[in-house]
Amino acid sequence: MASGAHLLADLHGVADALLRDRAALEALLTRAAAAADARVLFSHFHAFGDGGGVTGVVLLAESHISIHTWPEHGFAAVDIFMCGAAHPARALQLIESGLGAARCVRRDVPRGLHEIPA
Amino acid sequence: MASGAHLLADLHGVADALLRDRAALEALLTRAAAAADARVLFSHFHAFGDGGGVTGVVLLAESHISIHTWPEHGFAAVDIFMCGAAHPARALQLIESGLGAARCVRRDVPRGLHEIPA
Repeated sequence: MASGAHLLADLHGVADALLRDRAALEALLTRAAAAADARVLFSHFHAFGDGGGVTGVVLLAESHISIHTWPEHGFAAVDIFMCGAAHPARALQLIESGLGAARCVRRDVPRGLHEIPA
Repeated sequence: MASGAHLLADLHGVADALLRDRAALEALLTRAAAAADARVLFSHFHAFGDGGGVTGVVLLAESHISIHTWPEHGFAAVDIFMCGAAHPARALQLIESGLGAARCVRRDVPRGLHEIPA
């Protein structure tokens, strides 16, 4: 398990109603975990209400997926951190597609585990 | 609130007993949120048991702090994502100090919010 990939994705141009929809976002991130062959330990999503966004996390045996949304800007910040044999890029593909983002700025950050012999 | 800073910190050389201690890590990250002037919405920490590590997250009104630990490697991956007026570097300082890490590899990633006019 001495490998870890952290994908940071800034998604622009997402429909504001979706970025306020706690249940839809929780379902989407849960499906993304399954698509990555990751095991969900726990999830918690919070809606700020009054037209505000959603913040949520799916904790995985392989680390986590999180989302924070700003519907007033059509913007979502997603991060997908997975170690081991899971497939984080598959999770991101599903989330991008599910959100229908007009633009995705993605950065892949290898985490320190790559320094540790497998 | 149109700004967001994401600090990724890879902490090496941490005592393995601390990296297995769910309650101590939850208390440390909660104190870190307070040090950053962030507001905690929710937290959840999971211990893998049998000498394994801990994975946990503190969800904030300003985004999140997460930790994933590998006691067998003396390694912890921490990320601190905060928007608005909170002070993520203060949170990281407290976590580094609390873990007594021998080495910290830190990356600061501005998230897409910086593209949106404040």
